[in-house]
Amino acid sequence: MAYRFSPAIAKLVNALAKLPGIGQKTAQRLAFHILDESREDALALAEAIQEACRNVRLCSECCNLTEDDPCDICSSRTRDKTRICVVESPRDVAAMERIHDYQGLYHVLHGAISPMQDIGPEDIRLKELFQRLQEHEEVEEIILATNPTVEGEATALYIARLLKPAGIRTTRIAHGIPMGAALEYADEVTLARAFQNRQEV
Amino acid sequence: MAYRFSPAIAKLVNALAKLPGIGQKTAQRLAFHILDESREDALALAEAIQEACRNVRLCSECCNLTEDDPCDICSSRTRDKTRICVVESPRDVAAMERIHDYQGLYHVLHGAISPMQDIGPEDIRLKELFQRLQEHEEVEEIILATNPTVEGEATALYIARLLKPAGIRTTRIAHGIPMGAALEYADEVTLARAFQNRQEV
Repeated sequence: MAYRFSPAIAKLVNALAKLPGIGQKTAQRLAFHILDESREDALALAEAIQEACRNVRLCSECCNLTEDDPCDICSSRTRDKTRICVVESPRDVAAMERIHDYQGLYHVLHGAISPMQDIGPEDIRLKELFQRLQEHEEVEEIILATNPTVEGEATALYIARLLKPAGIRTTRIAHGIPMGAALEYADEVTLARAFQNRQEV
Repeated sequence: MAYRFSPAIAKLVNALAKLPGIGQKTAQRLAFHILDESREDALALAEAIQEACRNVRLCSECCNLTEDDPCDICSSRTRDKTRICVVESPRDVAAMERIHDYQGLYHVLHGAISPMQDIGPEDIRLKELFQRLQEHEEVEEIILATNPTVEGEATALYIARLLKPAGIRTTRIAHGIPMGAALEYADEVTLARAFQNRQEV
Protein backbone atom coordinates (compact mmCIF):
# COMPACT_ATOMS: atom_id res chain seq x y z
CA MET A 1 0.00 0.00 0.00
CA ALA A 2 1.34 3.40 -0.94
CA TYR A 3 1.89 5.90 1.81
CA ARG A 4 -0.89 8.46 1.80
CA PHE A 5 -0.85 11.88 3.35
CA SER A 6 -3.72 12.38 5.75
CA PRO A 7 -6.81 13.81 3.96
CA ALA A 8 -6.32 17.42 5.10
CA ILE A 9 -2.69 17.43 3.95
CA ALA A 10 -3.58 15.79 0.62
CA LYS A 11 -6.28 18.41 0.06
CA LEU A 12 -3.82 21.21 0.82
CA VAL A 13 -1.23 19.75 -1.55
CA ASN A 14 -3.79 19.46 -4.36
CA ALA A 15 -5.06 23.00 -3.82
CA LEU A 16 -1.51 24.39 -3.90
CA ALA A 17 -0.70 22.38 -7.03
CA LYS A 18 -3.46 24.25 -8.89
CA LEU A 19 -1.48 27.49 -8.72
CA PRO A 20 0.29 28.19 -12.03
CA GLY A 21 3.89 27.01 -12.13
CA ILE A 22 3.54 24.91 -8.99
CA GLY A 23 3.76 21.16 -9.52
CA GLN A 24 2.97 18.28 -7.20
CA LYS A 25 6.48 18.21 -5.72
CA THR A 26 6.64 21.93 -4.95
CA ALA A 27 3.11 21.78 -3.57
CA GLN A 28 4.21 19.08 -1.12
CA ARG A 29 7.17 21.17 -0.06
CA LEU A 30 4.93 24.21 0.47
CA ALA A 31 2.30 22.20 2.37
CA PHE A 32 4.85 20.78 4.80
CA HIS A 33 6.46 24.19 5.18
CA ILE A 34 3.06 25.66 6.07
CA LEU A 35 2.20 22.95 8.59
CA ASP A 36 5.64 22.57 10.05
CA GLU A 37 6.91 26.11 10.27
CA SER A 38 4.58 28.94 9.45
CA ARG A 39 0.96 28.33 10.31
CA GLU A 40 0.43 31.97 11.20
CA ASP A 41 1.68 33.16 7.83
CA ALA A 42 -0.44 30.51 6.13
CA LEU A 43 -3.59 31.57 7.94
CA ALA A 44 -2.80 35.18 7.01
CA LEU A 45 -2.51 34.03 3.38
CA ALA A 46 -5.86 32.25 3.58
CA GLU A 47 -7.43 35.41 4.90
CA ALA A 48 -5.74 37.58 2.26
CA ILE A 49 -7.12 35.30 -0.47
CA GLN A 50 -10.62 35.51 0.95
CA GLU A 51 -10.45 39.28 1.44
CA ALA A 52 -9.11 39.88 -2.06
CA CYS A 53 -11.71 37.62 -3.67
CA ARG A 54 -14.43 39.41 -1.71
CA ASN A 55 -13.32 42.99 -2.36
CA VAL A 56 -11.48 43.09 -5.65
CA ARG A 57 -13.61 43.43 -8.78
CA LEU A 58 -13.36 45.04 -12.20
CA CYS A 59 -13.52 48.83 -12.60
CA SER A 60 -16.70 49.58 -14.53
CA GLU A 61 -14.77 52.06 -16.65
CA CYS A 62 -11.43 50.47 -17.53
CA CYS A 63 -11.96 46.84 -16.42
CA ASN A 64 -8.78 46.91 -14.30
CA LEU A 65 -8.83 45.07 -10.96
CA THR A 66 -9.83 47.44 -8.18
CA GLU A 67 -11.45 47.69 -4.78
CA ASP A 68 -13.10 51.06 -5.48
CA ASP A 69 -15.26 51.60 -8.50
CA PRO A 70 -14.25 53.55 -10.56
CA CYS A 71 -10.59 52.75 -9.87
CA ASP A 72 -7.96 55.22 -8.66
CA ILE A 73 -6.71 55.92 -12.16
CA CYS A 74 -10.15 56.42 -13.74
CA SER A 75 -11.27 58.66 -10.89
CA SER A 76 -8.04 60.69 -10.72
CA ARG A 77 -8.40 64.39 -11.59
CA THR A 78 -4.82 64.73 -12.77
CA ARG A 79 -4.82 61.99 -15.42
CA ASP A 80 -5.16 62.87 -19.09
CA LYS A 81 -8.60 61.68 -20.15
CA THR A 82 -7.95 62.11 -23.86
CA ARG A 83 -5.71 59.02 -24.04
CA ILE A 84 -6.51 55.39 -23.42
CA CYS A 85 -3.82 52.71 -23.37
CA VAL A 86 -5.23 49.28 -24.24
CA VAL A 87 -3.51 46.33 -22.52
CA GLU A 88 -4.20 42.63 -22.18
CA SER A 89 -3.98 42.21 -18.41
CA PRO A 90 -3.90 44.11 -15.10
CA ARG A 91 -0.20 43.20 -14.82
CA ASP A 92 0.44 45.25 -17.95
CA VAL A 93 -1.08 48.31 -16.27
CA ALA A 94 1.39 47.86 -13.41
CA ALA A 95 4.24 47.56 -15.95
CA MET A 96 3.16 50.72 -17.82
CA GLU A 97 2.82 52.66 -14.57
CA ARG A 98 6.39 51.78 -13.66
CA ILE A 99 7.72 53.92 -16.51
CA HIS A 100 6.24 57.02 -14.78
CA ASP A 101 5.79 58.59 -18.18
CA TYR A 102 2.22 57.89 -19.16
CA GLN A 103 -0.50 60.03 -17.64
CA GLY A 104 -3.53 58.82 -19.57
CA LEU A 105 -6.13 56.17 -18.79
CA TYR A 106 -6.16 52.41 -19.44
CA HIS A 107 -8.43 49.74 -20.78
CA VAL A 108 -7.81 46.14 -19.74
CA LEU A 109 -9.02 43.54 -22.25
CA HIS A 110 -8.47 40.48 -20.02
CA GLY A 111 -7.07 38.45 -22.87
CA ALA A 112 -6.38 38.70 -26.58
CA ILE A 113 -8.12 37.43 -29.69
CA SER A 114 -6.93 33.89 -30.39
CA PRO A 115 -8.70 31.76 -33.01
CA MET A 116 -6.45 28.83 -32.02
CA GLN A 117 -7.83 28.91 -28.48
CA ASP A 118 -11.30 29.81 -29.66
CA ILE A 119 -11.17 33.28 -28.10
CA GLY A 120 -13.04 35.77 -30.26
CA PRO A 121 -13.53 39.54 -29.97
CA GLU A 122 -16.68 38.97 -27.90
CA ASP A 123 -14.73 36.94 -25.29
CA ILE A 124 -12.52 39.83 -24.20
CA ARG A 125 -13.50 43.28 -22.88
CA LEU A 126 -13.72 44.94 -26.31
CA LYS A 127 -17.41 45.81 -26.18
CA GLU A 128 -16.66 47.80 -23.03
CA LEU A 129 -13.92 49.71 -24.86
CA PHE A 130 -16.12 50.72 -27.78
CA GLN A 131 -18.98 51.67 -25.48
CA ARG A 132 -16.55 53.79 -23.50
CA LEU A 133 -15.43 55.59 -26.66
CA GLN A 134 -19.03 56.36 -27.58
CA GLU A 135 -19.73 57.80 -24.15
CA HIS A 136 -16.51 59.78 -23.88
CA GLU A 137 -16.03 61.87 -26.98
CA GLU A 138 -13.00 63.60 -25.47
CA VAL A 139 -10.78 60.58 -26.24
CA GLU A 140 -8.23 61.53 -28.92
CA GLU A 141 -5.77 58.68 -28.91
CA ILE A 142 -5.89 54.94 -28.38
CA ILE A 143 -2.47 53.44 -27.62
CA LEU A 144 -2.40 49.74 -28.42
CA ALA A 145 -0.07 48.09 -25.92
CA THR A 146 -1.08 44.47 -26.39
CA ASN A 147 1.78 41.93 -26.37
CA PRO A 148 3.93 41.45 -29.50
CA THR A 149 2.61 37.90 -29.91
CA VAL A 150 0.41 36.55 -32.72
CA GLU A 151 -2.64 37.05 -30.48
CA GLY A 152 -1.65 40.51 -29.29
CA GLU A 153 -0.87 41.67 -32.84
CA ALA A 154 -4.18 40.30 -34.12
CA THR A 155 -6.04 42.09 -31.33
CA ALA A 156 -4.25 45.38 -32.03
CA LEU A 157 -5.03 45.12 -35.74
CA TYR A 158 -8.66 44.30 -35.03
CA ILE A 159 -9.09 47.35 -32.80
CA ALA A 160 -7.20 49.63 -35.19
CA ARG A 161 -9.45 48.63 -38.09
CA LEU A 162 -12.63 49.27 -36.18
CA LEU A 163 -11.43 52.63 -34.91
CA LYS A 164 -10.20 53.97 -38.25
CA PRO A 165 -13.68 55.09 -39.48
CA ALA A 166 -14.31 56.78 -36.12
CA GLY A 167 -11.36 59.10 -36.76
CA ILE A 168 -9.64 58.41 -33.44
CA ARG A 169 -5.86 58.41 -33.61
CA THR A 170 -4.64 54.85 -33.04
CA THR A 171 -1.02 54.14 -32.18
CA ARG A 172 0.94 50.97 -31.39
CA ILE A 173 3.85 50.87 -28.95
CA ALA A 174 7.20 50.41 -30.71
CA HIS A 175 8.91 47.05 -31.03
CA GLY A 176 12.63 46.72 -31.54
CA ILE A 177 15.89 45.92 -29.81
CA PRO A 178 15.47 46.13 -26.00
CA MET A 179 17.62 48.82 -24.38
CA GLY A 180 20.91 47.43 -23.07
CA ALA A 181 20.68 44.33 -25.26
CA ALA A 182 23.37 43.31 -27.75
CA LEU A 183 22.37 43.47 -31.41
CA GLU A 184 24.05 40.16 -32.19
CA TYR A 185 21.78 38.27 -29.82
CA ALA A 186 18.53 39.79 -31.08
CA ASP A 187 16.20 37.35 -32.85
CA GLU A 188 15.49 37.94 -36.55
CA VAL A 189 11.90 39.06 -36.15
CA THR A 190 12.80 41.69 -33.57
CA LEU A 191 15.76 42.94 -35.59
CA ALA A 192 13.66 43.09 -38.77
CA ARG A 193 11.03 45.10 -36.91
CA ALA A 194 13.67 47.42 -35.48
CA PHE A 195 15.05 47.97 -38.99
CA GLN A 196 11.65 48.61 -40.57
CA ASN A 197 10.69 51.10 -37.89
CA ARG A 198 13.97 53.03 -37.95
CA GLN A 199 13.62 56.73 -37.26
CA GLU A 200 15.43 59.95 -38.18
CA VAL A 201 18.02 60.90 -35.59
CA MET B 1 3.95 58.81 -7.35
CA ALA B 2 4.57 55.11 -7.79
CA TYR B 3 1.69 52.94 -8.87
CA ARG B 4 0.30 51.00 -5.94
CA PHE B 5 -1.82 47.92 -6.04
CA SER B 6 -5.05 48.37 -4.13
CA PRO B 7 -4.62 47.34 -0.44
CA ALA B 8 -6.28 43.92 -0.75
CA ILE B 9 -4.12 43.02 -3.75
CA ALA B 10 -0.94 44.27 -2.04
CA LYS B 11 -1.80 42.21 1.04
CA LEU B 12 -2.35 39.11 -1.09
CA VAL B 13 0.96 39.65 -2.93
CA ASN B 14 2.85 40.02 0.36
CA ALA B 15 1.21 36.95 1.87
CA LEU B 16 2.08 34.86 -1.20
CA ALA B 17 5.67 36.16 -1.19
CA LYS B 18 6.16 34.66 2.28
CA LEU B 19 5.93 31.13 0.86
CA PRO B 20 9.40 29.61 0.43
CA GLY B 21 10.85 29.99 -3.06
CA ILE B 22 8.25 32.55 -4.11
CA GLY B 23 9.59 36.04 -4.69
CA GLN B 24 7.79 39.34 -5.14
CA LYS B 25 7.51 38.91 -8.92
CA THR B 26 6.06 35.39 -8.78
CA ALA B 27 3.74 36.48 -5.97
CA GLN B 28 2.36 39.24 -8.22
CA ARG B 29 1.84 36.77 -11.04
CA LEU B 30 0.04 34.36 -8.69
CA ALA B 31 -2.12 37.12 -7.17
CA PHE B 32 -3.30 38.33 -10.57
CA HIS B 33 -3.89 34.77 -11.68
CA ILE B 34 -6.04 34.17 -8.62
CA LEU B 35 -8.07 37.35 -9.06
CA ASP B 36 -8.30 37.23 -12.82
CA GLU B 37 -8.86 33.58 -13.54
CA SER B 38 -9.41 31.18 -10.69
CA ARG B 39 -11.19 32.66 -7.70
CA GLU B 40 -12.94 29.38 -6.97
CA ASP B 41 -9.68 27.46 -6.82
CA ALA B 42 -8.17 30.20 -4.67
CA LEU B 43 -11.04 30.10 -2.20
CA ALA B 44 -10.69 26.31 -2.08
CA LEU B 45 -6.99 26.82 -1.31
CA ALA B 46 -7.81 29.27 1.49
CA GLU B 47 -10.18 26.73 2.98
CA ALA B 48 -7.66 23.89 2.62
CA ILE B 49 -5.07 25.98 4.48
CA GLN B 50 -7.52 26.71 7.29
CA GLU B 51 -8.70 23.11 7.53
CA ALA B 52 -5.16 21.72 7.55
CA CYS B 53 -3.98 24.23 10.18
CA ARG B 54 -7.00 23.34 12.31
CA ASN B 55 -6.80 19.55 12.04
CA VAL B 56 -3.19 18.60 11.47
CA ARG B 57 -1.02 18.28 14.56
CA LEU B 58 1.93 16.19 15.72
CA CYS B 59 1.51 12.52 16.58
CA SER B 60 2.18 12.19 20.31
CA GLU B 61 4.26 9.08 19.61
CA CYS B 62 6.41 9.82 16.56
CA CYS B 63 5.93 13.59 16.12
CA ASN B 64 4.92 13.15 12.46
CA LEU B 65 2.16 15.40 11.10
CA THR B 66 -1.21 13.70 11.45
CA GLU B 67 -4.92 14.26 11.86
CA ASP B 68 -5.45 11.24 14.12
CA ASP B 69 -3.39 10.75 17.26
CA PRO B 70 -1.56 8.38 17.28
CA CYS B 71 -0.93 8.47 13.54
CA ASP B 72 -1.74 5.70 11.07
CA ILE B 73 1.79 4.28 11.19
CA CYS B 74 2.10 4.31 15.00
CA SER B 75 -1.35 2.73 15.43
CA SER B 76 -0.91 0.14 12.68
CA ARG B 77 -0.91 -3.47 13.86
CA THR B 78 1.19 -4.72 11.01
CA ARG B 79 4.22 -2.45 11.47
CA ASP B 80 7.36 -3.72 13.16
CA LYS B 81 7.53 -1.98 16.52
CA THR B 82 11.10 -3.06 17.22
CA ARG B 83 12.58 -0.56 14.75
CA ILE B 84 12.44 3.23 14.73
CA CYS B 85 13.74 5.26 11.79
CA VAL B 86 14.79 8.77 12.88
CA VAL B 87 14.30 11.49 10.25
CA GLU B 88 14.50 15.27 10.21
CA SER B 89 11.13 16.14 8.68
CA PRO B 90 7.71 14.72 7.76
CA ARG B 91 8.77 14.90 4.10
CA ASP B 92 11.46 12.33 4.87
CA VAL B 93 8.82 9.93 6.18
CA ALA B 94 7.01 10.23 2.86
CA ALA B 95 10.31 9.57 1.02
CA MET B 96 11.10 6.49 3.14
CA GLU B 97 7.58 5.13 2.65
CA ARG B 98 8.00 5.37 -1.11
CA ILE B 99 10.63 2.62 -1.05
CA HIS B 100 7.96 0.16 0.22
CA ASP B 101 10.69 -1.73 2.02
CA TYR B 102 10.65 -0.45 5.56
CA GLN B 103 7.97 -1.73 7.89
CA GLY B 104 9.10 -0.19 11.18
CA LEU B 105 8.10 3.02 12.92
CA TYR B 106 9.42 6.58 12.60
CA HIS B 107 10.51 9.45 14.75
CA VAL B 108 10.42 12.95 13.27
CA LEU B 109 12.91 15.38 14.84
CA HIS B 110 11.59 18.53 13.13
CA GLY B 111 15.08 19.82 12.47
CA ALA B 112 18.71 18.96 13.12
CA ILE B 113 21.32 20.12 15.60
CA SER B 114 23.03 23.21 14.17
CA PRO B 115 25.34 25.28 16.40
CA MET B 116 25.68 27.78 13.52
CA GLN B 117 21.96 28.48 13.62
CA ASP B 118 21.83 28.16 17.38
CA ILE B 119 19.72 25.00 17.26
CA GLY B 120 20.69 22.69 20.09
CA PRO B 121 19.52 19.16 21.03
CA GLU B 122 16.76 20.65 23.16
CA ASP B 123 15.31 22.55 20.16
CA ILE B 124 14.39 19.44 18.20
CA ARG B 125 12.18 16.49 19.19
CA LEU B 126 14.99 14.45 20.79
CA LYS B 127 13.57 14.41 24.30
CA GLU B 128 10.46 12.74 22.86
CA LEU B 129 12.64 10.07 21.22
CA PHE B 130 14.49 9.16 24.41
CA GLN B 131 11.30 9.16 26.41
CA ARG B 132 9.75 6.85 23.83
CA LEU B 133 12.70 4.45 24.12
CA GLN B 134 12.31 4.34 27.89
CA GLU B 135 8.62 3.56 27.61
CA HIS B 136 8.96 0.99 24.84
CA GLU B 137 11.59 -1.56 25.75
CA GLU B 138 10.77 -3.66 22.69
CA VAL B 139 12.75 -1.29 20.42
CA GLU B 140 15.84 -3.10 19.12
CA GLU B 141 17.16 -0.86 16.38
CA ILE B 142 17.36 2.86 15.75
CA ILE B 143 17.98 3.70 12.08
CA LEU B 144 19.46 7.16 11.74
CA ALA B 145 18.18 8.63 8.46
CA THR B 146 19.01 12.29 9.01
CA ASN B 147 20.37 14.13 5.95
CA PRO B 148 24.03 13.73 4.95
CA THR B 149 24.71 17.40 5.77
CA VAL B 150 26.91 18.79 8.55
CA GLU B 151 23.80 19.24 10.70
CA GLY B 152 22.31 15.84 9.89
CA GLU B 153 25.64 14.07 10.57
CA ALA B 154 26.08 15.91 13.87
CA THR B 155 22.57 14.95 14.92
CA ALA B 156 23.11 11.30 13.99
CA LEU B 157 26.39 11.22 15.92
CA TYR B 158 24.78 12.86 18.95
CA ILE B 159 21.97 10.29 19.04
CA ALA B 160 24.33 7.36 18.45
CA ARG B 161 26.56 8.41 21.35
CA LEU B 162 23.67 8.72 23.75
CA LEU B 163 22.21 5.36 22.74
CA LYS B 164 25.43 3.37 22.92
CA PRO B 165 25.30 2.86 26.72
CA ALA B 166 21.65 1.79 26.44
CA GLY B 167 22.69 -1.14 24.29
CA ILE B 168 20.24 -0.39 21.46
CA ARG B 169 21.55 -1.20 18.00
CA THR B 170 22.09 2.07 16.14
CA THR B 171 22.53 2.11 12.36
CA ARG B 172 23.02 4.88 9.81
CA ILE B 173 21.64 4.71 6.26
CA ALA B 174 24.40 4.20 3.67
CA HIS B 175 25.89 7.07 1.68
CA GLY B 176 27.55 6.55 -1.66
CA ILE B 177 27.11 6.90 -5.40
CA PRO B 178 23.38 7.27 -6.24
CA MET B 179 22.02 4.43 -8.39
CA GLY B 180 22.10 5.26 -12.09
CA ALA B 181 24.64 8.05 -11.62
CA ALA B 182 27.98 8.16 -13.44
CA LEU B 183 31.06 7.71 -11.27
CA GLU B 184 32.95 10.49 -13.06
CA TYR B 185 30.39 13.10 -12.01
CA ALA B 186 30.27 12.14 -8.34
CA ASP B 187 31.70 14.74 -5.94
CA GLU B 188 34.83 13.81 -3.97
CA VAL B 189 33.14 13.52 -0.59
CA THR B 190 30.49 11.14 -1.89
CA LEU B 191 33.05 9.05 -3.78
CA ALA B 192 35.34 8.91 -0.74
CA ARG B 193 32.43 7.74 1.39
CA ALA B 194 31.45 5.14 -1.20
CA PHE B 195 35.04 3.86 -1.23
CA GLN B 196 35.36 3.70 2.56
CA ASN B 197 32.06 1.86 2.92
CA ARG B 198 32.77 -0.69 0.18
CA GLN B 199 31.30 -4.11 0.81
CA GLU B 200 32.13 -7.71 -0.07
CA VAL B 201 30.33 -8.85 -3.20
